[in-house]
Amino acid sequence: MCGAAPTTPGSSFYEVAYDPARVLKSADFKILKEGDAELADKTANIACAYNPAHEVHMINKPKVSARKGEAIVHVKATGICGSDVHFWKHGHIGPTMIVTDECGAGHESAGEVIEVGEGVTDVKVGDRVAIEAGVPCSQPDCDPCRLGRYNACPRVVFFSTPPYHGTLTRYHAHPSAWLHKLPDNVSFEEGSLCEPLAVALAGIERAGIVLGDPIAICGAGPIGLITLLAAHAAGCYPIVITDLFESRLEFAKKLVPTVKTLVIGRNDKSEETAEKIKALAAAPIRVAMECTGFESSIRTAIFSVIFGGKVFVIGVGPSEQSYPFGYCNANEIDLQFQYRYANQYPKAIRLVAGGLIDLKPLVTHRFPLERAVEAFQVAADPTQGAIKVQIQD
Amino acid sequence: MCGAAPTTPGSSFYEVAYDPARVLKSADFKILKEGDAELADKTANIACAYNPAHEVHMINKPKVSARKGEAIVHVKATGICGSDVHFWKHGHIGPTMIVTDECGAGHESAGEVIEVGEGVTDVKVGDRVAIEAGVPCSQPDCDPCRLGRYNACPRVVFFSTPPYHGTLTRYHAHPSAWLHKLPDNVSFEEGSLCEPLAVALAGIERAGIVLGDPIAICGAGPIGLITLLAAHAAGCYPIVITDLFESRLEFAKKLVPTVKTLVIGRNDKSEETAEKIKALAAAPIRVAMECTGFESSIRTAIFSVIFGGKVFVIGVGPSEQSYPFGYCNANEIDLQFQYRYANQYPKAIRLVAGGLIDLKPLVTHRFPLERAVEAFQVAADPTQGAIKVQIQD
Amino acid sequence: MCGAAPTTPGSSFYEVAYDPARVLKSADFKILKEGDAELADKTANIACAYNPAHEVHMINKPKVSARKGEAIVHVKATGICGSDVHFWKHGHIGPTMIVTDECGAGHESAGEVIEVGEGVTDVKVGDRVAIEAGVPCSQPDCDPCRLGRYNACPRVVFFSTPPYHGTLTRYHAHPSAWLHKLPDNVSFEEGSLCEPLAVALAGIERAGIVLGDPIAICGAGPIGLITLLAAHAAGCYPIVITDLFESRLEFAKKLVPTVKTLVIGRNDKSEETAEKIKALAAAPIRVAMECTGFESSIRTAIFSVIFGGKVFVIGVGPSEQSYPFGYCNANEIDLQFQYRYANQYPKAIRLVAGGLIDLKPLVTHRFPLERAVEAFQVAADPTQGAIKVQIQD
Amino acid sequence: MCGAAPTTPGSSFYEVAYDPARVLKSADFKILKEGDAELADKTANIACAYNPAHEVHMINKPKVSARKGEAIVHVKATGICGSDVHFWKHGHIGPTMIVTDECGAGHESAGEVIEVGEGVTDVKVGDRVAIEAGVPCSQPDCDPCRLGRYNACPRVVFFSTPPYHGTLTRYHAHPSAWLHKLPDNVSFEEGSLCEPLAVALAGIERAGIVLGDPIAICGAGPIGLITLLAAHAAGCYPIVITDLFESRLEFAKKLVPTVKTLVIGRNDKSEETAEKIKALAAAPIRVAMECTGFESSIRTAIFSVIFGGKVFVIGVGPSEQSYPFGYCNANEIDLQFQYRYANQYPKAIRLVAGGLIDLKPLVTHRFPLERAVEAFQVAADPTQGAIKVQIQD
Repeated sequence: MCGAAPTTPGSSFYEVAYDPARVLKSADFKILKEGDAELADKTANIACAYNPAHEVHMINKPKVSARKGEAIVHVKATGICGSDVHFWKHGHIGPTMIVTDECGAGHESAGEVIEVGEGVTDVKVGDRVAIEAGVPCSQPDCDPCRLGRYNACPRVVFFSTPPYHGTLTRYHAHPSAWLHKLPDNVSFEEGSLCEPLAVALAGIERAGIVLGDPIAICGAGPIGLITLLAAHAAGCYPIVITDLFESRLEFAKKLVPTVKTLVIGRNDKSEETAEKIKALAAAPIRVAMECTGFESSIRTAIFSVIFGGKVFVIGVGPSEQSYPFGYCNANEIDLQFQYRYANQYPKAIRLVAGGLIDLKPLVTHRFPLERAVEAFQVAADPTQGAIKVQIQD
Repeated sequence: MCGAAPTTPGSSFYEVAYDPARVLKSADFKILKEGDAELADKTANIACAYNPAHEVHMINKPKVSARKGEAIVHVKATGICGSDVHFWKHGHIGPTMIVTDECGAGHESAGEVIEVGEGVTDVKVGDRVAIEAGVPCSQPDCDPCRLGRYNACPRVVFFSTPPYHGTLTRYHAHPSAWLHKLPDNVSFEEGSLCEPLAVALAGIERAGIVLGDPIAICGAGPIGLITLLAAHAAGCYPIVITDLFESRLEFAKKLVPTVKTLVIGRNDKSEETAEKIKALAAAPIRVAMECTGFESSIRTAIFSVIFGGKVFVIGVGPSEQSYPFGYCNANEIDLQFQYRYANQYPKAIRLVAGGLIDLKPLVTHRFPLERAVEAFQVAADPTQGAIKVQIQD
Repeated sequence: MCGAAPTTPGSSFYEVAYDPARVLKSADFKILKEGDAELADKTANIACAYNPAHEVHMINKPKVSARKGEAIVHVKATGICGSDVHFWKHGHIGPTMIVTDECGAGHESAGEVIEVGEGVTDVKVGDRVAIEAGVPCSQPDCDPCRLGRYNACPRVVFFSTPPYHGTLTRYHAHPSAWLHKLPDNVSFEEGSLCEPLAVALAGIERAGIVLGDPIAICGAGPIGLITLLAAHAAGCYPIVITDLFESRLEFAKKLVPTVKTLVIGRNDKSEETAEKIKALAAAPIRVAMECTGFESSIRTAIFSVIFGGKVFVIGVGPSEQSYPFGYCNANEIDLQFQYRYANQYPKAIRLVAGGLIDLKPLVTHRFPLERAVEAFQVAADPTQGAIKVQIQD
Repeated sequence: MCGAAPTTPGSSFYEVAYDPARVLKSADFKILKEGDAELADKTANIACAYNPAHEVHMINKPKVSARKGEAIVHVKATGICGSDVHFWKHGHIGPTMIVTDECGAGHESAGEVIEVGEGVTDVKVGDRVAIEAGVPCSQPDCDPCRLGRYNACPRVVFFSTPPYHGTLTRYHAHPSAWLHKLPDNVSFEEGSLCEPLAVALAGIERAGIVLGDPIAICGAGPIGLITLLAAHAAGCYPIVITDLFESRLEFAKKLVPTVKTLVIGRNDKSEETAEKIKALAAAPIRVAMECTGFESSIRTAIFSVIFGGKVFVIGVGPSEQSYPFGYCNANEIDLQFQYRYANQYPKAIRLVAGGLIDLKPLVTHRFPLERAVEAFQVAADPTQGAIKVQIQD
């Protein structure tokens, strides 16, 4: 009976099913060099992986076939996330997610179902789907899963978070319940962009941002820009967005012409920047969406909002930081944080399909799967001005 | 000391200040006939009024000058609300609001400040303003006022709700704190439309409608259409709107091309209509905004939403109604109601100024002030197909 | 893979596992008559059942042994719920829950684990547990289960709701994840009373009742009284409780001496009763908890609360009812409803264990399992003055 | 017209009415020395004041008589707050509240109405009242006042916050709308304790603590202990309370015998203390109420709550602090802060009158008004073990 939940960490149903050893100990596993035949074989299950030596390269993985409850997806589009680059370059995120072996990258993916396993009725061969990369245990003895907050599931398999291999691969086996069908008017590229959109939507939902709210967005990187698109779709006005780079703010202006922009200098004082934000808004800012994770930016956000306002932090930053306790205290400023997302994919797809959010302009670079390593190099190089780099197959 | 709140109903500061006897017992008060000189005098304080005999006509009122805390507004644009027509035709709304004498109409108004009284610093002569027609007592001993829910203030003076004269007049004296400045890019016409927009926004705020919510809107009259505009601006998708008249649904389609429409027949069964709404939405409807007040429509709304969903009633209808208790009970359907609004004007103006809501297409007919009676006749005649009739000066 | 959710109603994992045919078609199944040996055999799996002929009698069921994920509970205490009596006397609740065959009663149970199946680690033999009688599917493709609102699960197996047999039996097989361990200081009797407490707690949670709220409770039957205990534990004050019977109000006074009581006459006018409730409270009633389901009581509740207040209906009543739409509309009265509960058991047990809620006085009658039919007769006879009738083994 | 709100800071109605110059420049003003006749004159308006030289002494103030909207209260009981001692010893709180002249102490007061001014109908001579010490402007152009969050009013007169004199005086003039009548069963002493209770209740309300919540309380000083009483009355269970001093935890145990206590060492590691708190609770802690304001305690609170939990800070502490950003981020920990309170007095009085919260044991020391300076010395001396020191007249 599947109601029987495992209690030993590392031994849940999905943790076993997606044990990376199945790949790493397979006879088919191989780190690929330029010219290897697999790279030219359009049926090989090639993927892109990083390792503890801070290398990124193509690998060959065994073929997959659908087990009970699974579907095999031919991955058609995958975006590179900042965390993918971070795992490659730094080998870990926080104290618990550590690259200890070859680990496949990618969790922003969409593709086509090419095979379904026993009992699968929710998708069928030929369906175009977005892949929700985090698969929680869904057991009733798991408080987060039972309470609807599955991003907190301690037994989650999140593809591309070590040790689990990612979805930047040609063929990916996935529990069918965590695939989301794409309507005809949503492309694979847009389907893969639903992943960072899910992050922004989770933030907007939990921050309580609604129609007519004046807000600030700190940071105009990919998450900041998608948050901008989503906040604009949610009817926020005015929106002030800040960044260190004028070019990113120009990009923001193209996405949402009514946005008000502010370039910040590295040594600007938070209190002064906050005054500029307030002056630009000319309306009481109730919420600041912080998308950088930097202490100075979070401080600026705190000083920008009204008494009783909220700073909602989506960005990831240094693990220890300072904050103006006295100011927060005297002004009832809430600090709130986001970790991944739950229950956002259906909404994300609806918003894209309904034309309320147009993600397409975010993709600045595209590479075929065989050249995924180049894609990583572009994504990691700030001089390239990439917003979102995509790998397509 | 103004902290001393009156305890006798009818004797609050504003109730005294805006006592209709000041107009009705004035030597200048006069019911105007066609050809009367006042109608041609561009400086006369003419207005439009209804009375217990179900007549609507022009009246002459005394000139007004600004007292302490007041501003005089030259009213430039006023929309006719369904309640104006209802007071004229039926003489009352509910058991407490009764037309007992000549009573000036109109509460959807905007205009220009032409005089300010002592102590007024928040507006100045020449300012373009929307008039918030309900003036609550703002006393700390008034629970609704102190708690931020001033639409419940028992001492409110709501202009055009008997016995208080309305704002469909040339010169109107108003507490300056309840005037809202219009930015340059918001016209008087739009400023006056901020009143019904405030109604819709209050509904959306309290219904908890947010980005990505699939919703239904029952009724495509003025409030239904403005709710549609606001819900679209709030990022709702999909939106299904219903009405008895195809023409109104076509109007809805012009306002929001992605809206899905459903014509309802007078004798259609609520359960069946609800199934059609659900099929059109093809997404779980969490909230239905009911903008008609009719029992059959409210029942349809109830059957349309998911377990745990909400029917939010903005429409006004018959005072006693039936509802499917058993269905509500077994499906945790919330019923929620809206009475006027509080704290919506600044948001309404921001949304119009920011281009998120375009109210201009709603105005189908315009009349000069001296011909306000004609405006009322058009508004009351369903064959004219009016959405919003405006009187401008 | 258990991630594969069934899509055909009636075919989910638990629906199959607890198919009543396993009992009804078993060779051991037998309707017992007085004197039958099974009634005296302390190891027989006897139970109490109702049928479409409105009979209630003891039955013999096959022995059960624990399958994967299951535990066998020796049921030690079971309370009779109004719905048990209703199924017996009326054969259905609403249009979908219909008694079509012999159906075992009871869903308010606690007992001792006597056997566990493969993979069960959350309980062990000897554990004292409360049984959560509703077992939802817990599949990720089920919106209610995934979103934390599992009382809406369309595939739920709710023991004692036809066709599923109830927990008023000697040995009951249950998914171990839906058993809740009882601390040493919580008796089986109290453990079984956690079921109606869960109903009241769900109502209090969703009604948003908090410390210092003045509230009204309509009806002093078992659910009204438990709601009183819970609301008192939640710090509500003042609490006004109403009932048709003085004796029940005296019982309420014994449970919570500070409660204010009001006897209602069958023909009293709702508006007048509401005025009496308001006078007794002498504080603004924000929420009325309606525990009768009767139209007149719901109307009284509506007239009792302040502008912006809420009537929260826990009681079940006639499927079609009237309500004062105009009053709700002009006073922003919310109507909200409760269907079963989700995520309340751990809280219920904590509150009993912590001494915040004392359920023991509610049990007015106790019967051994073999005499469960007598227990039903007492529960169904209003002249007996029973509050909660328990069957113990 | 009182609708005309001042826009120059320092010039609002109440700011003018309670200008401290009225006292300081009065001919009656005098700093009293031991033996001065005023100290023995039971009709003299003596008070206790601090000054920039960190002195605390008795002063003589002019007699007061009731203006329009005011009542004169003979102050019968006043508690000393930590902030009173802080102003005396440190001369300021935060960067804006600075003692620049003699400033009367005290804001936790209750007394008897001995005179009422013109227009006052809400209280009458002989009424026993609690004094709400913060008087906001209540003007409709003030967003916080209009929105129901009047603790944010920028024009507030908060008695005892410089420059405004406090309520630790014999006769105090107060706007009648901000006096709260005490029922017969609530003593003056309890009425004065409603002020710190209001602080705790505001925290509990905004923290969203409800029936059955397991919580932690950091700090067992007066605010921590009152928060304990209030959380217990709200049905929280289990409650874990921490402090550096065993004696305070014993006091906590006397107030709420079921509370679990933990002594913390000055050099204990936050992560380790948090593990002890979690072990004591043996239930998922959703909210930690932080009542110390110290960085190490706030860190402990953060590590104590579950994923998605909240740390609610009532305590005031150093203006710059560090926090574990990474942990908050990966665990969606909300940080929320409280500044004074709004709309809590009626609830506080109800809870005391209803017997849900017993504040009486908190008063450990009592002094007559003439000996208020001694009271301050006891309150400021940690070796005295005072919880709440009261001055009574």
